[in-house]
Amino acid sequence: MRPVSFDAALAAAAEAVGRGLDSLLADMPGEVGAAMRHAAGGGKRLRAFLVLESARLHGVDPAQALWPAMAIEAMHAYSLVHDDLPAMDDDDLRRGLPTVHVKWDEATAILAGDALQSLAFECAAHPELAPATRADLALTLAQAAGARGMVLGQAMDIAAETAETPLTIDQITALQAGKTGALFEWSAMAGPRMAGADPDPLRRYAQAFGLAFQIADDILDVEGDEARAGKRLKKDGAAGKATFVSLLGLEPARARAAELAEAACDALSPYGAGAGNLQDAARFAISRRS
Amino acid sequence: MRPVSFDAALAAAAEAVGRGLDSLLADMPGEVGAAMRHAAGGGKRLRAFLVLESARLHGVDPAQALWPAMAIEAMHAYSLVHDDLPAMDDDDLRRGLPTVHVKWDEATAILAGDALQSLAFECAAHPELAPATRADLALTLAQAAGARGMVLGQAMDIAAETAETPLTIDQITALQAGKTGALFEWSAMAGPRMAGADPDPLRRYAQAFGLAFQIADDILDVEGDEARAGKRLKKDGAAGKATFVSLLGLEPARARAAELAEAACDALSPYGAGAGNLQDAARFAISRRS
Repeated sequence: MRPVSFDAALAAAAEAVGRGLDSLLADMPGEVGAAMRHAAGGGKRLRAFLVLESARLHGVDPAQALWPAMAIEAMHAYSLVHDDLPAMDDDDLRRGLPTVHVKWDEATAILAGDALQSLAFECAAHPELAPATRADLALTLAQAAGARGMVLGQAMDIAAETAETPLTIDQITALQAGKTGALFEWSAMAGPRMAGADPDPLRRYAQAFGLAFQIADDILDVEGDEARAGKRLKKDGAAGKATFVSLLGLEPARARAAELAEAACDALSPYGAGAGNLQDAARFAISRRS
Repeated sequence: MRPVSFDAALAAAAEAVGRGLDSLLADMPGEVGAAMRHAAGGGKRLRAFLVLESARLHGVDPAQALWPAMAIEAMHAYSLVHDDLPAMDDDDLRRGLPTVHVKWDEATAILAGDALQSLAFECAAHPELAPATRADLALTLAQAAGARGMVLGQAMDIAAETAETPLTIDQITALQAGKTGALFEWSAMAGPRMAGADPDPLRRYAQAFGLAFQIADDILDVEGDEARAGKRLKKDGAAGKATFVSLLGLEPARARAAELAEAACDALSPYGAGAGNLQDAARFAISRRS
């Protein structure tokens, strides 16, 4: 059964997660609280969609699945705030708004990111979930976010900026498996994890999807529109960074992203038509303009 | 029963937690991994001692209690790395060694701190513990570390540096309840939490102990020895920051710390002689010279 279209499911996920995070953050104190609200607002909410959709596929109560959906969006928001810092990617624009260290200052950005990471674990281990689920979600989220997951990818990305030789395709693929892939995988596996089911098809889906998403990001960096994207573009080329586009060329990169999106769709064949929204998500990722 | 002295128990806690963290961090990749090992090494391990000692009081298996003990030391290490950053307290010396951003760079320090926070939750939610325990430890650790706990305290501390009027005693007390108190409380409550027992006596102990510890820190900042302390001192006075010492005066501050240490000891009376090491810890906190 496929209740709504991908667009409608994504919009519903964004609405539910936005409302949930607003409520959690409403009375967070001080400037750090205000910065957390700023950072946690907006975005496509693709990771939350993956959580909610994989949960639906496994018959998990949507109200329960909202907790890991909020967890992953809080984690993603923290990573953006810290990645945008002057010592990291030094970005001044995010989701069409000034970044946290521009609107406030660096100390507030560091602290708001830190507190958003803590909040992610408050959500993952939320008492409304069953004890074994809370424990498993918190543990696996920590693994995905940490020094062998997302942080490793970001560290490789920063090291690449000053490396003497540009990265190879394999190195960029490994980098992205951490930087984008780890949270994508966690999101897509949340449903089977909560249901105690085999997460392998959704893991393979997320791996292919994550890489396709990142190649599309590199393409967007070259030919996208800043106003639409809501962030600075053409930074990679200016920095002389190797990307999928610089290494493969634009058209081969596009072809590779399309292949990966199809591989992501194929991985979901065990789910039949019920996985249509997730399959559309993979196709959306490579055709998006922001 | 009181198996060993406070000194021996603290040394044993430091040894066990140091060995455990070394093992967890041994193959963390790259410069971020090296920075995590640097940051997680050394220190008094007082928070780990509180976990292990409160666990012992409640008959919790020491091997199981080692997980929350490592969790809190990883969390504490992350907070020091980020607090030392130029945009925060701008410290170049910690535990007698250069701080992470001095030895590496700011990006590595931000990422190593981020990954140490994730690691704290990997430990708190470790699969060797019972599901309900893992879930409860992860949730409460997130609450203690986040925007209503430790981060709030640090934010208040930074705001105080540029405030037009110096903080009052009540404001400094609230600041410290977040900055130091939240992790102290979590540590001391880990034992009853793991045993499903009433955590209230240990909560009251930790609240008084944490504040006594912080007043002692302010005294140390005025009259301590940098080489022994392993960090820069006399920074508060130079920055014109209000402290317990500047507001109360040196001797009244000393008297207040002693009162609080006694209140901490009194809170443990339900435990009888078994709590001797914890009581000695509170007395140690106000007499320490580093």
